[in-house]
Amino acid sequence: METPGQPKAQSFEQRIPEGDDRLRRVCQDCGFVDYENPKVVVGSVATWGDKILLCRRAIAPRIGYWTLPAGYLEIHESAVDGACREAWEEARAELEIDQLLGVYSIPRISQIQLIYRARLVTPDVSAGPETQELDLFDWADIPWDDIAFPSVHWALNDFDAVRGMTGFAPRGNPAGETGAM
Amino acid sequence: METPGQPKAQSFEQRIPEGDDRLRRVCQDCGFVDYENPKVVVGSVATWGDKILLCRRAIAPRIGYWTLPAGYLEIHESAVDGACREAWEEARAELEIDQLLGVYSIPRISQIQLIYRARLVTPDVSAGPETQELDLFDWADIPWDDIAFPSVHWALNDFDAVRGMTGFAPRGNPAGETGAM
Repeated sequence: METPGQPKAQSFEQRIPEGDDRLRRVCQDCGFVDYENPKVVVGSVATWGDKILLCRRAIAPRIGYWTLPAGYLEIHESAVDGACREAWEEARAELEIDQLLGVYSIPRISQIQLIYRARLVTPDVSAGPETQELDLFDWADIPWDDIAFPSVHWALNDFDAVRGMTGFAPRGNPAGETGAM
Repeated sequence: METPGQPKAQSFEQRIPEGDDRLRRVCQDCGFVDYENPKVVVGSVATWGDKILLCRRAIAPRIGYWTLPAGYLEIHESAVDGACREAWEEARAELEIDQLLGVYSIPRISQIQLIYRARLVTPDVSAGPETQELDLFDWADIPWDDIAFPSVHWALNDFDAVRGMTGFAPRGNPAGETGAM
């Protein structure tokens, strides 16, 4: 659920802009202030019956490891729409969103992840361009040793913890965990 | 819970960067790609007994209108830490976070708002630099006609709807509402 940042332009310096109280990246050429805000990742634990959709990453980082369909929310997009878009892009999966499963904070990389519990509308899924392969896994068959990111572990375990429950409070980071790899 | 965007530098053009599939703002001077992502607003409905903390805004937009303590999440900050920081900055309020009350999407301005239900640790609150004045309101005395933003209405109404409940699913936008003013 991470993607690499863009290459840093060489013309930027760290400076506190007028009226601000924090160092920001300011372009020495054009004066543009690159306000860096946390990014929102939206995704889903999507199921068909008891089986859970996982995708093998075709892109860095963590190529070849298994992840949930998830990615950066785009501008002018709602969180639910973004989770559905990512499921389509990565797994050609059509979702019926159930409810918010987890809200995870990963301060090291400035991410807020909103992971929904969802049902697949049909079991017809197939790999999108960022996915090597995908599968619908029984819980017992999840490839725990080849999971891409800590937050994928969290979301899967949280999914299991609230199995059969409705109207629950979304889960957060496991105690003391920050997403460090 | 909105703040104005930065002035747009004149040197940017709209272009699809190599390997991307969307128009992005690219600086014609230095080639910097300004990836615009939705911003995360974190805030709270914070109470002392039955009274709810509201702040009158001292900054644009909506100067003089009442709002919840809330603002943009900063980089390398967790959502809960951000909500507590904003309560301190705007109201010198110390919070004990209860649970996530609402997750609101405002696609028009590309905001995701995470609003927590919280208790004040003490009733000793005072206006920070972005606040004209503040008060602890009984529900019956909330100045509904002078509320700054639609999402403040949503969060207050959602707070009322889940009064006495624990372990509830966070609320979303009211049906059909997008936050248009």
